[in-house]
Amino acid sequence: MQFPLLNPSERGEFDLRITKVREMSKASDYDAILISSSVNIYYLTGGICRGYLYLPMNDEPKFFVIPPAEADKPIMESIRKPEQICEKLIESGYQLPRRLGLEFDDLYYSEVERLAKCFKGAEITNCSGTLRGARVIKTPQEIKKMEEDGKRQSAVYSKIPTVYRAGMTDLEFQIEIERILRLEGCLGYLRVSGSKMEINMGSVICGDNADATSPYDFSMGGSGIDTSLPVGADNKEMRPGQCVMVDMNGGFNGYQTDMTRCWAIGEIREDALKAHECSRAILRELETYARPGVEIGELYRLAVRIADDTGLADYFMGHRHKVAFIGHGVGIELNELPVIMNRNKSLLEENMTLAIEPKFVLPGIGALGVENTYQVTPAGLRNLTVCDEELRILN
Amino acid sequence: MQFPLLNPSERGEFDLRITKVREMSKASDYDAILISSSVNIYYLTGGICRGYLYLPMNDEPKFFVIPPAEADKPIMESIRKPEQICEKLIESGYQLPRRLGLEFDDLYYSEVERLAKCFKGAEITNCSGTLRGARVIKTPQEIKKMEEDGKRQSAVYSKIPTVYRAGMTDLEFQIEIERILRLEGCLGYLRVSGSKMEINMGSVICGDNADATSPYDFSMGGSGIDTSLPVGADNKEMRPGQCVMVDMNGGFNGYQTDMTRCWAIGEIREDALKAHECSRAILRELETYARPGVEIGELYRLAVRIADDTGLADYFMGHRHKVAFIGHGVGIELNELPVIMNRNKSLLEENMTLAIEPKFVLPGIGALGVENTYQVTPAGLRNLTVCDEELRILN
Repeated sequence: MQFPLLNPSERGEFDLRITKVREMSKASDYDAILISSSVNIYYLTGGICRGYLYLPMNDEPKFFVIPPAEADKPIMESIRKPEQICEKLIESGYQLPRRLGLEFDDLYYSEVERLAKCFKGAEITNCSGTLRGARVIKTPQEIKKMEEDGKRQSAVYSKIPTVYRAGMTDLEFQIEIERILRLEGCLGYLRVSGSKMEINMGSVICGDNADATSPYDFSMGGSGIDTSLPVGADNKEMRPGQCVMVDMNGGFNGYQTDMTRCWAIGEIREDALKAHECSRAILRELETYARPGVEIGELYRLAVRIADDTGLADYFMGHRHKVAFIGHGVGIELNELPVIMNRNKSLLEENMTLAIEPKFVLPGIGALGVENTYQVTPAGLRNLTVCDEELRILN
Repeated sequence: MQFPLLNPSERGEFDLRITKVREMSKASDYDAILISSSVNIYYLTGGICRGYLYLPMNDEPKFFVIPPAEADKPIMESIRKPEQICEKLIESGYQLPRRLGLEFDDLYYSEVERLAKCFKGAEITNCSGTLRGARVIKTPQEIKKMEEDGKRQSAVYSKIPTVYRAGMTDLEFQIEIERILRLEGCLGYLRVSGSKMEINMGSVICGDNADATSPYDFSMGGSGIDTSLPVGADNKEMRPGQCVMVDMNGGFNGYQTDMTRCWAIGEIREDALKAHECSRAILRELETYARPGVEIGELYRLAVRIADDTGLADYFMGHRHKVAFIGHGVGIELNELPVIMNRNKSLLEENMTLAIEPKFVLPGIGALGVENTYQVTPAGLRNLTVCDEELRILN
């Protein structure tokens, strides 16, 4: 079954998502939206295709697919090109929209321009924010997928010490971690929001590479090994006294969990342990503090206060290069909403899924800290990535 | 050195590229173009950043970068946001463009919209085709990078039989190939043109998975293991009598070579050998036939004729699902121009780089054939991916 949307037993799940998108659309007053980005097609149909989901606010959705996708169900119709959509809608008795939402933040300019031309006379407006907003609160089925994902990612993380060999470079270590992730079923592809975000399966950062500049908006970028992809491991030998941070892909089933653990090479230095334990203390505080109704910016400020009280403010979320967030939403894409930063005045809601990553960068040592993916529940944060958090020695 | 453009010893190379882009721009009559996609920033500067290269037709380029990129050279200037570009240009004595090229096919709609607003009053037009066109003919330095890339990819391919174990699934085989690619220095990230092209490090396709439908525009898609990424290996055991096709990533240095080899599992079947040898015969023909001045569509027709004469037309470039090309340009992106298809009336030019992949899909067996990456020279095609092409047995 290529499209779970078409599976009667799963239809309820997708009706739930469609209802949520319609609810979120009210503020924008669209007559309809037309979805074709992979991320949003996957969200609303459970599959991937070259195609277009037309979702009117007051009528049944209509799913136009381009072969080789097969249009074998009443809701689906086969087309060769998007220019046919309007005539097909009219044939099916639909009124054409006066105001149509298109994905301005997920499609190339020329793609939106082409679709806009297909709906001549309609007012075209951006529906990317509506979809991104709808995806913030996960359905029970999405939570289940992320739970499964977190378990599989944790299973791999518990094996990480077994692939370490003294004298390895950070990149060699990463390659062995990639392999055990893939053997566990990781799809090896990260969907990341933003046209300029590029990464393979995550990053392993050791020593001062944690403080390298990277043009990408990841929490600790790393310099990479080539000017064409300046992110991640720099292929230097991991040396005693350094720490290594593993922030690798957890995408097994269309959803992702985001998870970081750190290890010490050879010996644990006291300042490294202090920073690492401070990160864990921040997570423990946030786990009970973060509940529906709490302002998101307050999570950021609470984390900064704890880092400050521990005398580690200079090293929190980077040293030479700092980032202004301590976490982010996660789901189909690695970097979903909300961003957990000072100026985010939105309130937490039940079944948001958040990757929280209070990290420190200590010169000469590297990055320390823990990142877990959490479900927001009325009782606080529920950890979906349960796995040993202690700073242990690799040797 | 983050940006080779700023390295005096490399400046000549980038002047060459800039000259070529200006030459190609004449047909479009821009006063200037503004480049910010990763692919084109990399092409014109040798690095990756959050930034904007402003390239007037009759004045020096100006490179605006957003921190953490450092603006330490006269050609570069630091900005916080693109809205500052015009004032900075005026300060530097530039005339603002009346007609400005932006990358309609490489940036999201909202990104182009934002940049267009920064240049109020200017006529905005699409420069993506100009850049894509300029990138078709490689400079000597680009050819050198692709040569190096092809050598490293070939070195890995020659080791592929050593990682095979009887009873493996296609996916397990792929994972071991990914590992040896990465250990050789493969960056593990494929730049692919098109908002809907998604793949990790390539594909390993065995048996009837070669004929599975995939929504992506790769030559033989494969079904993948999850509805969220329907491409590549399907994790079924590779069985005697089947063939396995390895079409994996060759990106080591910002450029890619594209290369396919096939192996038989346990025994070589006569029909598989016939198809495989037909692919090699097509390549041999094309290697001498394809020279500057030859119409590109003629390469396609010649290949089809040979497949036809061998009685294999039904299986050429797919069986149940066929693709309409036998190859494509390759460089920074996996799928560059030209597309080698029937209706392409353009002529071959010296220093185009082409991935040519005449492939067959035999029901019950799998995909057969060879793909090499070639440089177009006056003497014909020069193979950049020299490596054993024979159909050999894995066991």
